[in-house]
Amino acid sequence: MEKIVRQNLLYDFYGELLTEHQRSIYEDAIYNDMSLSEISESYGITKQGVHDIIKRCDKALEAYENKLHLMERFDSARVKAEELREKLALIEKGAGRVPEETAECLKRACELTEDMISLLYGP
Amino acid sequence: MEKIVRQNLLYDFYGELLTEHQRSIYEDAIYNDMSLSEISESYGITKQGVHDIIKRCDKALEAYENKLHLMERFDSARVKAEELREKLALIEKGAGRVPEETAECLKRACELTEDMISLLYGP
Repeated sequence: MEKIVRQNLLYDFYGELLTEHQRSIYEDAIYNDMSLSEISESYGITKQGVHDIIKRCDKALEAYENKLHLMERFDSARVKAEELREKLALIEKGAGRVPEETAECLKRACELTEDMISLLYGP
Repeated sequence: MEKIVRQNLLYDFYGELLTEHQRSIYEDAIYNDMSLSEISESYGITKQGVHDIIKRCDKALEAYENKLHLMERFDSARVKAEELREKLALIEKGAGRVPEETAECLKRACELTEDMISLLYGP
Protein backbone atom coordinates (compact mmCIF):
# COMPACT_ATOMS: atom_id res chain seq x y z
CA MET A 1 0.00 0.00 0.00
CA GLU A 2 1.29 3.46 -0.85
CA LYS A 3 2.42 5.36 2.25
CA ILE A 4 0.00 8.26 1.79
CA VAL A 5 -2.94 5.87 1.31
CA ARG A 6 -2.03 4.01 4.49
CA GLN A 7 -1.64 7.28 6.40
CA ASN A 8 -5.09 8.34 5.21
CA LEU A 9 -6.69 5.06 6.21
CA LEU A 10 -5.00 4.95 9.60
CA TYR A 11 -6.06 8.51 10.24
CA ASP A 12 -9.67 7.66 9.33
CA PHE A 13 -9.61 4.92 11.95
CA TYR A 14 -7.58 6.35 14.79
CA GLY A 15 -7.19 10.05 14.07
CA GLU A 16 -9.64 10.95 16.83
CA LEU A 17 -7.12 9.67 19.35
CA LEU A 18 -4.54 12.31 18.41
CA THR A 19 -4.55 15.73 20.06
CA GLU A 20 -6.37 18.56 18.31
CA HIS A 21 -3.06 20.26 17.47
CA GLN A 22 -1.67 17.05 15.98
CA ARG A 23 -4.85 16.43 14.01
CA SER A 24 -4.79 19.88 12.54
CA ILE A 25 -1.21 19.63 11.32
CA TYR A 26 -1.53 16.03 10.19
CA GLU A 27 -4.64 16.86 8.16
CA ASP A 28 -2.87 19.73 6.48
CA ALA A 29 0.00 17.44 5.56
CA ILE A 30 -1.93 14.32 4.58
CA TYR A 31 -5.36 15.51 3.41
CA ASN A 32 -4.59 19.00 2.21
CA ASP A 33 -1.23 18.07 0.74
CA MET A 34 0.48 21.15 2.21
CA SER A 35 4.29 21.27 2.19
CA LEU A 36 6.39 21.39 5.35
CA SER A 37 7.22 25.04 4.57
CA GLU A 38 3.57 26.00 4.17
CA ILE A 39 2.59 24.29 7.42
CA SER A 40 5.63 25.76 9.17
CA GLU A 41 4.60 29.29 8.15
CA SER A 42 0.93 28.76 8.90
CA TYR A 43 1.55 27.50 12.46
CA GLY A 44 4.64 29.53 13.26
CA ILE A 45 6.78 26.49 14.03
CA THR A 46 10.00 25.31 12.41
CA LYS A 47 9.97 22.90 9.50
CA GLN A 48 11.80 20.42 11.72
CA GLY A 49 9.02 20.84 14.30
CA VAL A 50 6.36 20.09 11.69
CA HIS A 51 8.32 17.09 10.49
CA ASP A 52 8.61 15.77 14.05
CA ILE A 53 4.88 16.15 14.70
CA ILE A 54 3.96 14.29 11.51
CA LYS A 55 6.44 11.54 12.36
CA ARG A 56 5.01 11.27 15.89
CA CYS A 57 1.46 11.04 14.50
CA ASP A 58 2.49 8.30 12.04
CA LYS A 59 4.05 6.38 14.88
CA ALA A 60 1.03 6.78 17.15
CA LEU A 61 -1.41 5.70 14.43
CA GLU A 62 0.70 2.67 13.53
CA ALA A 63 0.93 1.76 17.22
CA TYR A 64 -2.87 1.79 17.53
CA GLU A 65 -3.21 -0.47 14.50
CA ASN A 66 -0.48 -2.78 15.79
CA LYS A 67 -2.43 -3.21 18.97
CA LEU A 68 -5.99 -3.29 17.67
CA HIS A 69 -5.76 -4.54 14.04
CA LEU A 70 -9.15 -2.99 13.36
CA MET A 71 -8.15 -1.42 10.04
CA GLU A 72 -6.86 -4.79 8.90
CA ARG A 73 -10.11 -6.49 9.89
CA PHE A 74 -12.26 -3.84 8.22
CA ASP A 75 -10.11 -4.02 5.14
CA SER A 76 -10.44 -7.80 4.83
CA ALA A 77 -14.20 -7.55 5.35
CA ARG A 78 -14.40 -4.91 2.62
CA VAL A 79 -12.66 -7.17 0.12
CA LYS A 80 -15.15 -9.94 0.91
CA ALA A 81 -18.13 -7.60 0.70
CA GLU A 82 -17.06 -6.33 -2.68
CA GLU A 83 -16.61 -9.79 -4.10
CA LEU A 84 -20.01 -10.62 -2.66
CA ARG A 85 -21.51 -7.68 -4.52
CA GLU A 86 -20.11 -9.09 -7.77
CA LYS A 87 -21.38 -12.59 -7.08
CA LEU A 88 -24.87 -11.35 -6.26
CA ALA A 89 -24.97 -9.41 -9.52
CA LEU A 90 -24.03 -12.59 -11.38
CA ILE A 91 -26.66 -14.58 -9.49
CA GLU A 92 -29.31 -11.99 -10.34
CA LYS A 93 -28.31 -12.21 -13.98
CA GLY A 94 -28.11 -16.00 -14.10
CA ALA A 95 -31.02 -17.03 -11.94
CA GLY A 96 -33.56 -16.35 -14.67
CA ARG A 97 -37.14 -16.96 -13.61
CA VAL A 98 -37.23 -17.74 -9.93
CA PRO A 99 -40.16 -17.69 -7.49
CA GLU A 100 -41.12 -14.19 -6.38
CA GLU A 101 -40.02 -14.90 -2.81
CA THR A 102 -36.57 -15.87 -3.99
CA ALA A 103 -36.34 -12.76 -6.14
CA GLU A 104 -37.21 -10.67 -3.09
CA CYS A 105 -34.55 -12.41 -1.00
CA LEU A 106 -32.04 -11.67 -3.72
CA LYS A 107 -33.04 -8.03 -3.78
CA ARG A 108 -32.72 -7.83 -0.01
CA ALA A 109 -29.33 -9.60 -0.12
CA CYS A 110 -28.08 -6.93 -2.52
CA GLU A 111 -29.36 -4.15 -0.24
CA LEU A 112 -27.70 -5.75 2.78
CA THR A 113 -24.42 -6.00 0.92
CA GLU A 114 -24.56 -2.32 -0.02
CA ASP A 115 -25.38 -1.41 3.59
CA MET A 116 -22.43 -3.45 4.77
CA ILE A 117 -20.08 -1.84 2.29
CA SER A 118 -21.21 1.61 3.50
CA LEU A 119 -20.64 0.62 7.10
CA LEU A 120 -17.20 -0.81 6.33
CA TYR A 121 -16.16 2.29 4.44
CA GLY A 122 -17.20 4.36 7.38
CA PRO A 123 -19.11 7.46 8.27
CA MET B 1 -27.34 -4.12 26.05
CA GLU B 2 -26.52 -5.68 29.41
CA LYS B 3 -23.62 -3.92 31.13
CA ILE B 4 -21.41 -7.00 31.34
CA VAL B 5 -21.96 -7.79 27.64
CA ARG B 6 -21.01 -4.25 26.68
CA GLN B 7 -17.93 -4.38 28.91
CA ASN B 8 -16.89 -7.61 27.23
CA LEU B 9 -17.37 -6.23 23.75
CA LEU B 10 -15.58 -2.97 24.49
CA TYR B 11 -12.73 -4.90 26.01
CA ASP B 12 -12.48 -7.10 22.90
CA PHE B 13 -12.11 -3.96 20.81
CA TYR B 14 -10.00 -1.64 22.89
CA GLY B 15 -8.60 -3.75 25.74
CA GLU B 16 -5.14 -3.71 24.18
CA LEU B 17 -4.97 0.00 24.88
CA LEU B 18 -5.17 -0.48 28.65
CA THR B 19 -2.03 -1.09 30.72
CA GLU B 20 -1.06 -4.67 31.50
CA HIS B 21 -2.01 -4.22 35.16
CA GLN B 22 -5.42 -2.84 34.22
CA ARG B 23 -5.99 -5.63 31.72
CA SER B 24 -5.17 -8.29 34.24
CA ILE B 25 -7.59 -6.96 36.87
CA TYR B 26 -10.31 -6.12 34.36
CA GLU B 27 -10.15 -9.62 32.87
CA ASP B 28 -10.47 -11.17 36.30
CA ALA B 29 -13.52 -9.04 37.00
CA ILE B 30 -15.25 -9.24 33.61
CA TYR B 31 -14.14 -12.51 32.02
CA ASN B 32 -13.35 -14.61 35.07
CA ASP B 33 -16.24 -13.27 37.11
CA MET B 34 -14.10 -12.85 40.22
CA SER B 35 -15.50 -10.79 43.11
CA LEU B 36 -13.92 -7.57 44.37
CA SER B 37 -12.77 -9.43 47.49
CA GLU B 38 -11.14 -12.21 45.50
CA ILE B 39 -9.31 -9.75 43.23
CA SER B 40 -8.38 -7.61 46.22
CA GLU B 41 -6.76 -10.60 47.95
CA SER B 42 -5.11 -11.90 44.83
CA TYR B 43 -3.43 -8.56 44.01
CA GLY B 44 -2.90 -7.32 47.54
CA ILE B 45 -4.84 -4.09 46.99
CA THR B 46 -7.93 -2.78 48.76
CA LYS B 47 -11.41 -3.55 47.49
CA GLN B 48 -11.85 0.18 46.91
CA GLY B 49 -8.65 0.13 44.84
CA VAL B 50 -9.96 -2.70 42.67
CA HIS B 51 -13.28 -0.93 42.28
CA ASP B 52 -11.50 2.25 41.17
CA ILE B 53 -9.37 0.42 38.61
CA ILE B 54 -12.40 -1.30 37.07
CA LYS B 55 -14.26 1.99 36.97
CA ARG B 56 -11.28 3.68 35.30
CA CYS B 57 -11.06 0.90 32.70
CA ASP B 58 -14.79 1.19 31.94
CA LYS B 59 -14.36 4.90 31.46
CA ALA B 60 -11.31 4.52 29.23
CA LEU B 61 -12.99 1.88 27.03
CA GLU B 62 -16.15 3.97 26.69
CA ALA B 63 -14.02 6.99 25.81
CA TYR B 64 -12.33 5.06 22.98
CA GLU B 65 -15.69 3.97 21.61
CA ASN B 66 -17.07 7.50 21.92
CA LYS B 67 -14.21 8.75 19.80
CA LEU B 68 -13.87 5.93 17.29
CA HIS B 69 -17.32 4.26 17.06
CA LEU B 70 -15.66 1.14 15.70
CA MET B 71 -17.60 -1.29 17.88
CA GLU B 72 -20.82 0.33 16.75
CA ARG B 73 -19.81 0.01 13.09
CA PHE B 74 -18.74 -3.61 13.48
CA ASP B 75 -21.94 -4.37 15.33
CA SER B 76 -24.13 -2.90 12.61
CA ALA B 77 -22.19 -4.78 9.96
CA ARG B 78 -22.65 -8.02 11.92
CA VAL B 79 -26.41 -7.58 12.00
CA LYS B 80 -26.44 -7.09 8.22
CA ALA B 81 -24.14 -10.05 7.62
CA GLU B 82 -26.32 -12.33 9.68
CA GLU B 83 -29.48 -11.31 7.89
CA LEU B 84 -27.58 -11.85 4.65
CA ARG B 85 -26.74 -15.41 5.72
CA GLU B 86 -30.45 -16.09 6.25
CA LYS B 87 -31.41 -14.60 2.89
CA LEU B 88 -28.79 -16.61 1.04
CA ALA B 89 -30.07 -19.81 2.68
CA LEU B 90 -33.58 -18.93 1.49
CA ILE B 91 -32.30 -18.17 -2.01
CA GLU B 92 -30.47 -21.52 -2.13
CA LYS B 93 -33.67 -23.26 -1.06
CA GLY B 94 -35.95 -21.35 -3.40
CA ALA B 95 -33.84 -21.04 -6.52
CA GLY B 96 -34.48 -24.64 -7.59
CA ARG B 97 -32.68 -25.62 -10.77
CA VAL B 98 -30.37 -22.82 -11.83
CA PRO B 99 -27.45 -22.88 -14.26
CA GLU B 100 -24.30 -24.41 -12.79
CA GLU B 101 -22.47 -21.07 -12.90
CA THR B 102 -25.21 -19.44 -10.86
CA ALA B 103 -25.13 -22.27 -8.34
CA GLU B 104 -21.38 -21.76 -7.98
CA CYS B 105 -21.82 -18.02 -7.45
CA LEU B 106 -24.37 -18.77 -4.77
CA LYS B 107 -22.00 -21.18 -3.07
CA ARG B 108 -19.23 -18.59 -3.17
CA ALA B 109 -21.60 -15.90 -1.85
CA CYS B 110 -22.33 -18.11 1.15
CA GLU B 111 -18.62 -18.68 1.77
CA LEU B 112 -17.92 -14.95 1.55
CA THR B 113 -20.68 -14.23 4.03
CA GLU B 114 -19.25 -16.74 6.49
CA ASP B 115 -15.77 -15.25 6.04
CA MET B 116 -17.17 -11.80 6.69
CA ILE B 117 -18.99 -12.93 9.82
CA SER B 118 -15.74 -14.47 11.12
CA LEU B 119 -13.86 -11.25 10.44
CA LEU B 120 -16.54 -9.15 12.09
CA TYR B 121 -16.60 -11.34 15.17
CA GLY B 122 -12.87 -11.01 15.38
CA PRO B 123 -9.78 -13.02 16.01
